[in-house]
Amino acid sequence: MSYTGYRGKGLEFLKKSKVEVGNQVKIHADLPYSGIIMPRYEYLDDSHIVLKLEDGYNIGLDIGKIKKIELEPSPKTTKENIPKLETDPALPRILLISTGGTIASKIDYRTGAVTPALTASELNATVPELSKTANIDTEVLFSEYSENLLPEHWIKIAEKLNSYARSEYRGIIVAHGTDTMQYTAAALAFSLSGFPKPVALVGSQRSSDRPSSDAALNLIAAARFLVETDTSGIFVVMHNTSSDDEIACHWATRVRKNHTSRRNAFQTVGGWPAFIIEDNRIEKDKLFNPQKGEYNPKIKFDNRVVLVKYYPGFEPKIMDYIISSGYKAIIFEGTGLGHVGKIMYDTIEKAKKKGLFVGMTSQCIDGMVRMTVYDSGRDLLNLGVTPLGNMIPETALVKAMWALANSKDSAEMTKIMKENIALEFSD
Amino acid sequence: MSYTGYRGKGLEFLKKSKVEVGNQVKIHADLPYSGIIMPRYEYLDDSHIVLKLEDGYNIGLDIGKIKKIELEPSPKTTKENIPKLETDPALPRILLISTGGTIASKIDYRTGAVTPALTASELNATVPELSKTANIDTEVLFSEYSENLLPEHWIKIAEKLNSYARSEYRGIIVAHGTDTMQYTAAALAFSLSGFPKPVALVGSQRSSDRPSSDAALNLIAAARFLVETDTSGIFVVMHNTSSDDEIACHWATRVRKNHTSRRNAFQTVGGWPAFIIEDNRIEKDKLFNPQKGEYNPKIKFDNRVVLVKYYPGFEPKIMDYIISSGYKAIIFEGTGLGHVGKIMYDTIEKAKKKGLFVGMTSQCIDGMVRMTVYDSGRDLLNLGVTPLGNMIPETALVKAMWALANSKDSAEMTKIMKENIALEFSD
Repeated sequence: MSYTGYRGKGLEFLKKSKVEVGNQVKIHADLPYSGIIMPRYEYLDDSHIVLKLEDGYNIGLDIGKIKKIELEPSPKTTKENIPKLETDPALPRILLISTGGTIASKIDYRTGAVTPALTASELNATVPELSKTANIDTEVLFSEYSENLLPEHWIKIAEKLNSYARSEYRGIIVAHGTDTMQYTAAALAFSLSGFPKPVALVGSQRSSDRPSSDAALNLIAAARFLVETDTSGIFVVMHNTSSDDEIACHWATRVRKNHTSRRNAFQTVGGWPAFIIEDNRIEKDKLFNPQKGEYNPKIKFDNRVVLVKYYPGFEPKIMDYIISSGYKAIIFEGTGLGHVGKIMYDTIEKAKKKGLFVGMTSQCIDGMVRMTVYDSGRDLLNLGVTPLGNMIPETALVKAMWALANSKDSAEMTKIMKENIALEFSD
Repeated sequence: MSYTGYRGKGLEFLKKSKVEVGNQVKIHADLPYSGIIMPRYEYLDDSHIVLKLEDGYNIGLDIGKIKKIELEPSPKTTKENIPKLETDPALPRILLISTGGTIASKIDYRTGAVTPALTASELNATVPELSKTANIDTEVLFSEYSENLLPEHWIKIAEKLNSYARSEYRGIIVAHGTDTMQYTAAALAFSLSGFPKPVALVGSQRSSDRPSSDAALNLIAAARFLVETDTSGIFVVMHNTSSDDEIACHWATRVRKNHTSRRNAFQTVGGWPAFIIEDNRIEKDKLFNPQKGEYNPKIKFDNRVVLVKYYPGFEPKIMDYIISSGYKAIIFEGTGLGHVGKIMYDTIEKAKKKGLFVGMTSQCIDGMVRMTVYDSGRDLLNLGVTPLGNMIPETALVKAMWALANSKDSAEMTKIMKENIALEFSD
């Protein structure tokens, strides 16, 4: 039996009524309500049951006011009632790889269960529009919320994609949690630089128990993007506005999650999305030129890199610890045009003497680092700090992990960090 | 003699020509040029001299093509030619405290020197419009680029302001570098909560050798804001757009520098500026309610606080080091709605066992932390992590330094961190 999130009186009530999370029920209270019992995610009180109504909205029902709960036949998707997946030989084939996250759990959520399970049939049942665009094969690679992903997961995804680089798929969708999607996108852009097919990372900002979920629209837009455009490389496909009119397709190394909850949380920093996907057309940004380099996968990362955000009161001893603990590179999120306080100069000198790569980005996130304008910047240049242009800090961190794993020394790493490998410099 | 930035051939050339940085000269090359010799900030070549022309633009002149340099009478501001400061007894009095930064150096920059020196007379000479708004007294507190400021500088500024809390000044301008202006603004908002006068932190995004400098307009707008509105508390006054039409007045705890170089780099996160200052009027945001609390200064900060930005590949051993090094509080910049990977749970448990305060903000910067939506968030709540709403990470860090210094234990600190002291929670 599943009672996720219920405790105290609420838990007792469910047990007594012989119903559980995921059950289709009819509840008689002030009015009769039909719906699915949902997991509870609030610790605050134990006297309400959450019901997902047929219109998609959730309501909380006070157990003190419930007269009766009747178990009803569940309309939940079973092998029997999933519509048979129709394939149309005239349509291109797309592969959908699932790694977890809200978007993957969404697909199966009608049952009340949150474990991701994304077969082609289930997908087809949930987002039937997809089958009008392409024939979709699906594959579950792993099932993790993206805050739990590590560089080793990036490697798994990259190797999986690499194995399909020369396949007959028109393009590949990667369903992914949104928390660290931008890190994975950047990791794929560097390690699979020049990938010959388009890859769309797709997530969902709203959990499936909310009627405003963006999962289906993002998936449909991603499929259309893969089929209707003639491009290649790694992209992130998410809502462009808070309405459903526009889906944005961001280039992997320039995208950032800039809001915790909005559907249009993802933005291209220092530019515009590469493509805008609308109902009747897909528009390419005039300035966007996808990479044309040779495909030469280098699927290695070394996480002996630390991202250090500088702020007033930051103590150099933390840097000293990093330097003495085997790390090989430091990416600063400096202030303004790329500065840190004078208090840091000694420890930076130590880092450089020990052969660490020290790169500079800005905590402003947007705009170029320019270290020749003020004395502070020039001092840091003289100490051997490498300015990283307008690379966003998270991308610079991922690139450093990749560059470190793929270079023999600090000089080679510095050269790689300055090179525009995957459009990470946009100015 | 001053040759800032010149080396090799360029340096030799200046010495031979008996001119230095700051001199007014006439240079005969392909054409004749009149201007001031500027410092050089590019290390790349040593064969050019930078001249600031009368129209404000800088040009680089190849020394190989210079036929002659003539020293001309310098129009630089001297005690003799500064217009006498006119005071108008009908106007209110404002105090301008200078702490350094581009805005302070700007004022004196016509001479080619970059040391800040901001007397009332010089100010009046440079920004004559100010004297139409108020009678301005000035005071140089210190002269530092703001990347070099530490919590001890916040204390100096706060104590100086506190000493004028009951003075006859209508309001106070603090000229400040932009790099860490938001940190100082937050520090003042907490330590001087309920300050009875309006305080405007003002900076400049463009160095004075650029015709597009924003310093004068920001100063004028700040003076008008202090004189024309009936409000109090700590604000940041900077350009609102890339044009000169609108100056924004941001509330101290909600403002962030979101671009390295734009004049409108500062933005109110999760809302709108408290006031917009236009040519003919000052408009207050409907939702902005300045604090009405009693003035109760608590000018203490304790920097045994670390801001930790979580990312894939972050190693818990860095947290372990922080925990064992005497730090008393950790502010996370988590992912999404306020998460960190499972890999961090053990070290967070250690931190809590040791009595550290652990607070959660989001690296998305904008939006609420909501830790009850996903398992990851609920796990962290259960470990004792405190969600910090939509407080921006840098403000949370400053608040933690202030709360730590003003509480006797972790429980009291937690209480302070959750309280809305200086409008740091806007939702």
